[in-house]
Amino acid sequence: MKTKIFNILAFFSLAAFSQQSDSLAIRKIYDEILMNGKCYQNLDYLCNKIGNRISGSPQAAAAVEWAKQAMIDAGADTVFLQEVMVPHWVRGEKEVGMIVNSKNIGSKDVAVKALGGSVGTGVDGITANVIEVKTFEELTKLGAQVKGKIVFFNRAFDAKLISTGSMYGGAVNQRGSGPSEAAKYGAVGVVVRSMTLANDDFPHTGALHYKEGVAQIPACAISTKGANLLSQLLKNDSDLKFFMRTTCQTLPDVKSYNVVGEIKGSEKADEIIVVGGHLDSWDVGQGAHDDGAGIVQSIEVIRALKASGIKPKRTIRAVAFMNEENGLKGGLKYAELAKQNKEKHIAAMESDGGGFTPRGFGAGGDKAKVEKIRSWQPLLESYLIYKISAGGEGGADIGPLEDQGTILIGYECDNQRYFDYHHTDNDTFDKVNKRELELGAAAMTSLIYLISYYGL
Amino acid sequence: MKTKIFNILAFFSLAAFSQQSDSLAIRKIYDEILMNGKCYQNLDYLCNKIGNRISGSPQAAAAVEWAKQAMIDAGADTVFLQEVMVPHWVRGEKEVGMIVNSKNIGSKDVAVKALGGSVGTGVDGITANVIEVKTFEELTKLGAQVKGKIVFFNRAFDAKLISTGSMYGGAVNQRGSGPSEAAKYGAVGVVVRSMTLANDDFPHTGALHYKEGVAQIPACAISTKGANLLSQLLKNDSDLKFFMRTTCQTLPDVKSYNVVGEIKGSEKADEIIVVGGHLDSWDVGQGAHDDGAGIVQSIEVIRALKASGIKPKRTIRAVAFMNEENGLKGGLKYAELAKQNKEKHIAAMESDGGGFTPRGFGAGGDKAKVEKIRSWQPLLESYLIYKISAGGEGGADIGPLEDQGTILIGYECDNQRYFDYHHTDNDTFDKVNKRELELGAAAMTSLIYLISYYGL
Repeated sequence: MKTKIFNILAFFSLAAFSQQSDSLAIRKIYDEILMNGKCYQNLDYLCNKIGNRISGSPQAAAAVEWAKQAMIDAGADTVFLQEVMVPHWVRGEKEVGMIVNSKNIGSKDVAVKALGGSVGTGVDGITANVIEVKTFEELTKLGAQVKGKIVFFNRAFDAKLISTGSMYGGAVNQRGSGPSEAAKYGAVGVVVRSMTLANDDFPHTGALHYKEGVAQIPACAISTKGANLLSQLLKNDSDLKFFMRTTCQTLPDVKSYNVVGEIKGSEKADEIIVVGGHLDSWDVGQGAHDDGAGIVQSIEVIRALKASGIKPKRTIRAVAFMNEENGLKGGLKYAELAKQNKEKHIAAMESDGGGFTPRGFGAGGDKAKVEKIRSWQPLLESYLIYKISAGGEGGADIGPLEDQGTILIGYECDNQRYFDYHHTDNDTFDKVNKRELELGAAAMTSLIYLISYYGL
Repeated sequence: MKTKIFNILAFFSLAAFSQQSDSLAIRKIYDEILMNGKCYQNLDYLCNKIGNRISGSPQAAAAVEWAKQAMIDAGADTVFLQEVMVPHWVRGEKEVGMIVNSKNIGSKDVAVKALGGSVGTGVDGITANVIEVKTFEELTKLGAQVKGKIVFFNRAFDAKLISTGSMYGGAVNQRGSGPSEAAKYGAVGVVVRSMTLANDDFPHTGALHYKEGVAQIPACAISTKGANLLSQLLKNDSDLKFFMRTTCQTLPDVKSYNVVGEIKGSEKADEIIVVGGHLDSWDVGQGAHDDGAGIVQSIEVIRALKASGIKPKRTIRAVAFMNEENGLKGGLKYAELAKQNKEKHIAAMESDGGGFTPRGFGAGGDKAKVEKIRSWQPLLESYLIYKISAGGEGGADIGPLEDQGTILIGYECDNQRYFDYHHTDNDTFDKVNKRELELGAAAMTSLIYLISYYGL
């Protein structure tokens, strides 16, 4: 009995001690980032000096060089590149989208952008009648009626949903699979309503996935204002025609790189924790929220730990993944090499939901390990982290690590504005708030610190 | 034993039932606001058609008329005004602030704005040497040395704090009390660093409070960029002079109004629940986040309940308080009339922290009643409300109700950007996100609904 009491007391005092030292370490991390943070000025450089950086572009190559140097500057013990071949799709000339031959307005330009990976229409463009659908079921019912026509997918985000990710999930198959689904029935082109709740004139690009064995037809995104106009005109003029002209094309694959910056663990260096984002962006705007934010936050994890003198027990790697947007080649390569090199990745965290104020994390994988992460939540509550939820995939780039037993963690922020900017010319540096970006970096660093100390 | 089990079962099934019906009602509220919300277009009107509206101004009078009509349009059973006399301070001509006679740069314009309530410098302005201080203790030590000089209060927001409200609280006494503190020692003017973490060129106005029996000296806010420049130059040029010119003045009090829109409770109409914000703003920008947002959200509470057919059991009043910024006359009048009319105000909620994504509520007052409110949190968790905390004052306008036993509730949102805009020309409609504003209105409506059903 005596021993037992002693043990319990020892346990409590130990717990109390480490909780206090953890609190102090976390406070140190926040002080370092909120007072001396470099992530905002890094983002400024990446956005304003390099700009958008689609895989295979000169800007993507510049971003690789920049990320390497930024990780060295952050104080990483080692910085290295992982070679990976990536797709090289180019947009070509500025797209033209036009409602033509409408009895109501004659003709009118609307804002469109080719979907990533789309074939072009050719320099002459295509003109065809338009059939609007909201679902693939509607399309199937129409069947041969869409032959020779442009299919207009116009299912809007469901504003009733609270999670913007769920809104996106409920609409994005129109963009990804719509072109091939329409082509099956002989459509000659596809126009997709932009993936956003915002009512504006920014078309949102993003990847399409052509199905094997189905004709590849040109596809573009139309702004929500354009979509609303087109839909409204179609109601009274089913004979209306649409003109689209895109000169995008896919060139041969290009050699590129993931960039990795590492702090060697002081005790269990063989256990690796990844924190990353994707270095590539779409070829529009500046890729500020998507995903410049995740990149500079991941580099800040390295910098903040080094600058505040916190020595992680396990190895931490900041990874700038290449080619998340249109191929995931970087994420796949990282996991392939991890397996090949028999590395033990205990956890991987991704920030790819924007640089907004933190709200929490989502952690997926082995239940007991996820619960261990969740048990640390009280340490982070005074830093706006109210919820660490079980489940979720963490992020596309780290996904391929899942079958190595890695716990996948997604950084979750206040992303209600995310799809106002996502994949558009509007995703620029000025849309990111310094303080919000830093609070995110500090939350990420704190959780990475805890994992590096206690393992999973 | 049998009875007991029966009772427990009855209790659980009752609890389950009301929980389900509450969930459905809350879902209905969200659907109504997220699909048919009017608060964003109301804010557009208030900001872009009326504009900023300091107490006593023609715009404030216009805002009263507008709020009255907006509450009628929202479907309030009764709309009425409460007469109240308010201060009438006018800014006069655009202020001039200039670093002059500096050996380093000669002279340079800096962005300043008179503090609300300040006396003017007269049309000739004043020029004097500058002494920089960060605290009142420093000022006291300097004592007679500040005689004939301009005191420059330059204590910055503490970026290490996570709560922006705490940052503000830690700096705002420079603005409120600084002028009289400096005047005690013979200073001729005061320049105060703007109340913000942002590094930009927007001066932040706000109220000062002259102490009785102390000379009233002119005071203005300087932008953070201006403050940093002034501080830097002072380091090498203690003989530097500053010129300020303000023509602001206080005119006689003016008659104005609180605007109240009421839904009569279906069962306990004598129990009143207030939800409000303040209709006046500073005379800069458009008063969008401060506090147009709170006004349109409060009106939306009325509209959403009416439109979704939910009949509150207790009486709900949306109140557009007048004169929060420089006198609180509206809030004081409301409480005075409540007492005089022997009304029973069980709860009052204010939204005056910006129109950002909800994070929670803070509730202050009787402990058991506050705990009752906190027990409803699970109903709101899927709507981003993770925290209803005990404590807090709710908001300035509802504060005077405290001694009538009213539970005071503050709507709390993701306000990390709030002090980027607060009291500046930058607080404009375009800084408010439709979705975020609506999510706030829906959270407020849901909690008001619960109080109206279950009482406190």
